[in-house]
Amino acid sequence: MFSDISLTDDKPLYIQIRDYIKQMILKGLLSQGQKLPSTRELCNTIGVSRNTIILAYEYLEDEGFVQIIKGRGTFVSDITIDYQDEWNMDWTSRLTPYAHLANQLDIVKHESRWQKGMISFKSIAPDDKLFDLDDFKRAFLDRFSLEGEKLLNYGYAQGYKPLIDYLMGYMENKGVKTQGKDILVTNGFTEGFDMVLSALTEPGDHILCENPTHNTAVKIMKLHGLEIVGVDMEDDGIDLDKLQEALSNNPVSMGFLIPSYHNPTGIVMSPEKRVEVLNTFARHRVPLIEDGFNEELRYSGSHLSPLAALCGRGNSIIYIGSLSKVLFPGLRIGWILGDSHLISQLESIKRSRNIHSSFLDQAILYEYLAAGNLEKYLKKARRIYREKYDYALECAQRYIPCKKILGEGGLHIFIELDHNLNARKVLDECIRQNVIFMPGDIFYIHGKGANTFRLGFARCTPEEIRQGFKIIGDVIRGLE
Amino acid sequence: MFSDISLTDDKPLYIQIRDYIKQMILKGLLSQGQKLPSTRELCNTIGVSRNTIILAYEYLEDEGFVQIIKGRGTFVSDITIDYQDEWNMDWTSRLTPYAHLANQLDIVKHESRWQKGMISFKSIAPDDKLFDLDDFKRAFLDRFSLEGEKLLNYGYAQGYKPLIDYLMGYMENKGVKTQGKDILVTNGFTEGFDMVLSALTEPGDHILCENPTHNTAVKIMKLHGLEIVGVDMEDDGIDLDKLQEALSNNPVSMGFLIPSYHNPTGIVMSPEKRVEVLNTFARHRVPLIEDGFNEELRYSGSHLSPLAALCGRGNSIIYIGSLSKVLFPGLRIGWILGDSHLISQLESIKRSRNIHSSFLDQAILYEYLAAGNLEKYLKKARRIYREKYDYALECAQRYIPCKKILGEGGLHIFIELDHNLNARKVLDECIRQNVIFMPGDIFYIHGKGANTFRLGFARCTPEEIRQGFKIIGDVIRGLE
Repeated sequence: MFSDISLTDDKPLYIQIRDYIKQMILKGLLSQGQKLPSTRELCNTIGVSRNTIILAYEYLEDEGFVQIIKGRGTFVSDITIDYQDEWNMDWTSRLTPYAHLANQLDIVKHESRWQKGMISFKSIAPDDKLFDLDDFKRAFLDRFSLEGEKLLNYGYAQGYKPLIDYLMGYMENKGVKTQGKDILVTNGFTEGFDMVLSALTEPGDHILCENPTHNTAVKIMKLHGLEIVGVDMEDDGIDLDKLQEALSNNPVSMGFLIPSYHNPTGIVMSPEKRVEVLNTFARHRVPLIEDGFNEELRYSGSHLSPLAALCGRGNSIIYIGSLSKVLFPGLRIGWILGDSHLISQLESIKRSRNIHSSFLDQAILYEYLAAGNLEKYLKKARRIYREKYDYALECAQRYIPCKKILGEGGLHIFIELDHNLNARKVLDECIRQNVIFMPGDIFYIHGKGANTFRLGFARCTPEEIRQGFKIIGDVIRGLE
Repeated sequence: MFSDISLTDDKPLYIQIRDYIKQMILKGLLSQGQKLPSTRELCNTIGVSRNTIILAYEYLEDEGFVQIIKGRGTFVSDITIDYQDEWNMDWTSRLTPYAHLANQLDIVKHESRWQKGMISFKSIAPDDKLFDLDDFKRAFLDRFSLEGEKLLNYGYAQGYKPLIDYLMGYMENKGVKTQGKDILVTNGFTEGFDMVLSALTEPGDHILCENPTHNTAVKIMKLHGLEIVGVDMEDDGIDLDKLQEALSNNPVSMGFLIPSYHNPTGIVMSPEKRVEVLNTFARHRVPLIEDGFNEELRYSGSHLSPLAALCGRGNSIIYIGSLSKVLFPGLRIGWILGDSHLISQLESIKRSRNIHSSFLDQAILYEYLAAGNLEKYLKKARRIYREKYDYALECAQRYIPCKKILGEGGLHIFIELDHNLNARKVLDECIRQNVIFMPGDIFYIHGKGANTFRLGFARCTPEEIRQGFKIIGDVIRGLE
């Protein structure tokens, strides 16, 4: 004992020695009343300074594991760990249908995973090499020196006030009229969407969305027990005739749309269609949740108003924003902009779920944004992603035999194959050749999309794009 | 126009000028095709450098608000914001019962608030003046320089691996046997408890807890539609006879206990009672959720095993931990330790709720903990809080006429008045005299606790404690 302790570099030595002795006591290898070696003795045995041993013994005393008696020594306290019946539950049999469904719909668990050496087009996460770490660090240091203590203590459910104010201005700059509206900061789009559905829908309610749509949104709608009414898309957005029909034939209580860089198709809804869509929903008195997905990654010059701007002072659009697809998804910061009474109700739900989002992260993000870093970053990111996008499009046209290539920007394109081709078969063979992507069926409702897939390219080099797309194309030709 | 722009210091000038012009365009004050002043002209009008104007115009072009035509000038683009029918919803009529209940149970909205100048015993948040900001900053800088990019991109639902490993060791040091168990990182206790209930309970299920118990837990149990079976407490923890009776007479499917520094009473469950309680639950085959509340703030020397340690290799305890009451609640980091299959199910729920907790915060916390800062911090915090606790106890005994003073440590004490006294009446009068505290009834089930209240002292000076307790005592005497 004691001489067999192996010390490492990654933790303070006194903590390693404390933990070693603690474990000896907990395992019953040192028993009540037993005298520990003197600090002088132990420091020689282990080969550390005597102060390290003194500190370790002091911490052990603080935590009640030993008693230090002056002039006599250090003795193990009475630690009776009277282990009970090792009683085991079968937890699986106790899981709720909700828990089973969350597991079943968890694509991370069920889809093929990236393996070392593969070219991956699976993800649409941004390329973290573009992040401007120095600006981020500066934002941390500036904000932390101003109000570090405050940021580490409890904050407010609605969010960090300066960030809320900043985001209000940001939305105004998109043309949104903010009178009578307010913002709630959330842990990304996912939490925002989940809370809005909790506040406004009950199992069995009908929700209308584009078909396909964001697979996380599909998962959340299913977890809320909603009937999903999927409406097919045209190349400039949702099919208006089918939208009209679906709203007439179903008791739809809520709509969910992704007008910009729609996930997974990459389609940007045209300005004319935006107005028509809004009027159609208004005629049916069905409110809308708008996902402001990747709005910031416009490569072309034209300004496009979000639906939340087009409805003027009306309060019928709930806009969920996030910078996560562009910038710092690891922070999980998003926001809901909507009618201020509704936001106040959502604030209570937020408080009941996790009290508030990290105040430190909100404050760093605020400082980063307020200093004008987003504009600077976007200038660089747009240029680089646009080059990748153009090259991906070129390679897709050259190598991948298909019916349609969709995607007007953002970080991905979407491929539609001939109807008799199955994208999962293509995927299986591609994985054998070390290329992976996202099969399209996970984005579809009503069992469609078997002949589609999504290619994310943000983190790929041009060479990976060329090589990977060529392999995909060859596989498809082999199956035709 | 243009000359009336008012520039401030808190944002880059080009952004302020860009936003000003954007708003002019969005409001229709600058119309399509209109030529903007030359950069030379505008820089003189506003009194900034010409480069600032050039930058502002470039950003406006990036976002599609203007077109810059070389040799001719800068022209407003076609921004048709065709505001639609200002269509308004009555959101309140659409709220779910869940949303109404979340609002109704939100004590932040319904309890009296602290006003400037008041002495507040309402909160049990830690004193942020004790936070060691330099150590925290060092942890940020160290970890960020190692893997900043990675931390800002997407992470994993289960949590940041080094933090999970650290917490596993931390739990082993409390005597917990971790074989077959795993950890999920959550946004604090609140999210952990909410997710566990989602996974394992359905509306109408019976859950047993101490009466009183943590008011956030009461809120969450009610939001899940559970029947709450509250069991009275004795001075050393839950009443064993009543526990036995409650388990026999109700179809209880889950227990929830706070064995250490119980909130709100401050009672620490005795070691003997811990064993008895565990055996009682085991006999009834009812699993337990253990809230490891404030375990770290032991002032006395004796080591106390959490229930999760006493059950040995059994898997029937779900332990929810958090450092939030001691350290950095603003980060919202907590964890669930339990059976590894169960943790895997909870991981899917976590992913469906908000993908994961902030990786940046998890990594900073890991670095902070691994460097041994927690031990150092606790040494200081325990000493200071213990002094405050001793003084608060002394003042309570001296000034507040009551039946019982409870609380063996932590950051609060709990007062039980004579049965005919109402704590809310005391509170109303105290508020008039600028003293505020938390009425006890919010912690109780079955309508009890009208004669109780909680006094948090972590952020009070000794003088505030003395003066505030004296006022409370005088008010009580006036009502007797």
